[in-house]
Amino acid sequence: MHILILGAAGMVGRKLAERLAKDGRLGKSEISKLTLQDVVAPAKPAGASMPVDLVTADVSSQPAVEKLVALRPDVIFHLAAIVSGEAEADFDKGYRINLDGTRYLIDAIRHIGGGYRPRLVFTSSIAVFGAPFPEKIGDEFFTTPLTSYGTQKAIGELLISDYSRKGLLDGVSIRLPTICVRPGTPNKAASGFFSNIIREPLSGKEAVLPVSEDVMHWHASPRSAVGFLIHAGTMDLNTIGPRRALSMPGLAATVGEQIAALERVAGKNVVARIKRQPDQTIMGIVAGWPRNFSTERALKLGFTTAEKTFDDIIRIHIDDELGGNFVN
Amino acid sequence: MHILILGAAGMVGRKLAERLAKDGRLGKSEISKLTLQDVVAPAKPAGASMPVDLVTADVSSQPAVEKLVALRPDVIFHLAAIVSGEAEADFDKGYRINLDGTRYLIDAIRHIGGGYRPRLVFTSSIAVFGAPFPEKIGDEFFTTPLTSYGTQKAIGELLISDYSRKGLLDGVSIRLPTICVRPGTPNKAASGFFSNIIREPLSGKEAVLPVSEDVMHWHASPRSAVGFLIHAGTMDLNTIGPRRALSMPGLAATVGEQIAALERVAGKNVVARIKRQPDQTIMGIVAGWPRNFSTERALKLGFTTAEKTFDDIIRIHIDDELGGNFVN
Repeated sequence: MHILILGAAGMVGRKLAERLAKDGRLGKSEISKLTLQDVVAPAKPAGASMPVDLVTADVSSQPAVEKLVALRPDVIFHLAAIVSGEAEADFDKGYRINLDGTRYLIDAIRHIGGGYRPRLVFTSSIAVFGAPFPEKIGDEFFTTPLTSYGTQKAIGELLISDYSRKGLLDGVSIRLPTICVRPGTPNKAASGFFSNIIREPLSGKEAVLPVSEDVMHWHASPRSAVGFLIHAGTMDLNTIGPRRALSMPGLAATVGEQIAALERVAGKNVVARIKRQPDQTIMGIVAGWPRNFSTERALKLGFTTAEKTFDDIIRIHIDDELGGNFVN
Repeated sequence: MHILILGAAGMVGRKLAERLAKDGRLGKSEISKLTLQDVVAPAKPAGASMPVDLVTADVSSQPAVEKLVALRPDVIFHLAAIVSGEAEADFDKGYRINLDGTRYLIDAIRHIGGGYRPRLVFTSSIAVFGAPFPEKIGDEFFTTPLTSYGTQKAIGELLISDYSRKGLLDGVSIRLPTICVRPGTPNKAASGFFSNIIREPLSGKEAVLPVSEDVMHWHASPRSAVGFLIHAGTMDLNTIGPRRALSMPGLAATVGEQIAALERVAGKNVVARIKRQPDQTIMGIVAGWPRNFSTERALKLGFTTAEKTFDDIIRIHIDDELGGNFVN
């Protein structure tokens, strides 16, 4: 089985590549080759026993996408995207990468023909939803994005469902919760604080909390995100029907609950590194974001999270990113 | 006020042009010019007192669309589309006209710049919805199209909402019910029978009913459709917020109720011209279609139908298309 990951240098793409390299298989199939694409050179995952091709290319280049699809990968994970803030700031770039890029991909698949019908896993986002919301967003709630990024993801879902319905590919779109704890350094994303207030204190550094403790949000660990992708790449889609966009399970937690979990897992000293600096702009942005979901359909289809509580999310970060230790 | 109608040779486009030509104004504004575009030459509406430009052009030609938008119309009615059956049969053509054409339009508007921000009324369709449904489809039900046409309309809605949110245009998407009674001759559209069983018997001709009498569907008269467009072109959108796709009000009626109304309005002789010829293919297609809606938001925003009962729909057809007479 040949697997292509588009956007393999991103945080989730990198973790997915590492997991596939380590497992050597996807579901019941041995992986014969891994092709990793990104606009910057992706890293070769450690310990890969199969051949790994690293491709630096831009998904907004139609010939580049066609060249990758011409390799006829059996499974394609499409994670390549301009993130929310950048798509909002650079309107053209967002549509070029997030919409045109996705169309290049699905049209390249279609034009191969001859029965070629790969599994396509598209990472969508809870950004397809915009306030006001019901208490929990159910599986039949409408998509009302409040960003161009969310719009582009919602369009991608529609396209992949239609192309799948026509038998041109075998696609599924999974709406990832906000990934927490996001490894790395603090970035300028408005959602960054959800991870910053856990990750930075655990490394002995201060973190800024710009919103009040009653802000609720929808989280999943990086380990869960990789698990969703693997399940989406292997699950039987023959019975899923035409509704191929699924909100992934997650954990609803308020910022207060996040902090309480951090205190339980890591103690008072760590929590004391969180500095409250209310920011009206960030509060305004966050007010339009989804808080809580009811993801019955995904659960029924076998998607599961790696965590039961926010304490688990913190422990997964300590285990997977910090070698089991933190700065007390 | 300069008004552009894209798709002006279609049934609804033609009726809209006739109404605007007759009124001489849209809301409070006098119409200084009417530009009518279609891929076949649109007809000049009778009795127009304002200059009318007829343009034969293809919306899937980017330069042609840019040329029309360069005229800086104040209001644009975007009705140009490949219909459902054809978009399903010719995949490329459907995406080219219904998706690329819409993008050419909104990007042409955006690139004019300098504060140009026209009202854009986009005719979407209840085809953005696909079974299974709740008893009534509410304003927050998700779009799950079962055709490429419905997919392209749902994408158009998302784009127009996003471009409006960014202040690049002032758009609204209105989801028209099935238009009944559709004038003209029977066509091959799977939905044709809803109109055929009324229109043909009233003209002394037989009509084929391919489904059972308990099939329910969502109807509006051509007069109502034109009314929706005019209201969408004049309403205050400053308070509508980012949710700019609206299901239009209509009338839910079973085929049995349609026939009973026809008998009340036109008598037994007319009804006797309906011939029952069950067609499993058409029954299968129709089973996936919306039947009934709850359109509270559109009603609150001032959209109204011209009919209260299916009897009214039949009378409107007799008045507007048959000069008040029918063949008994």
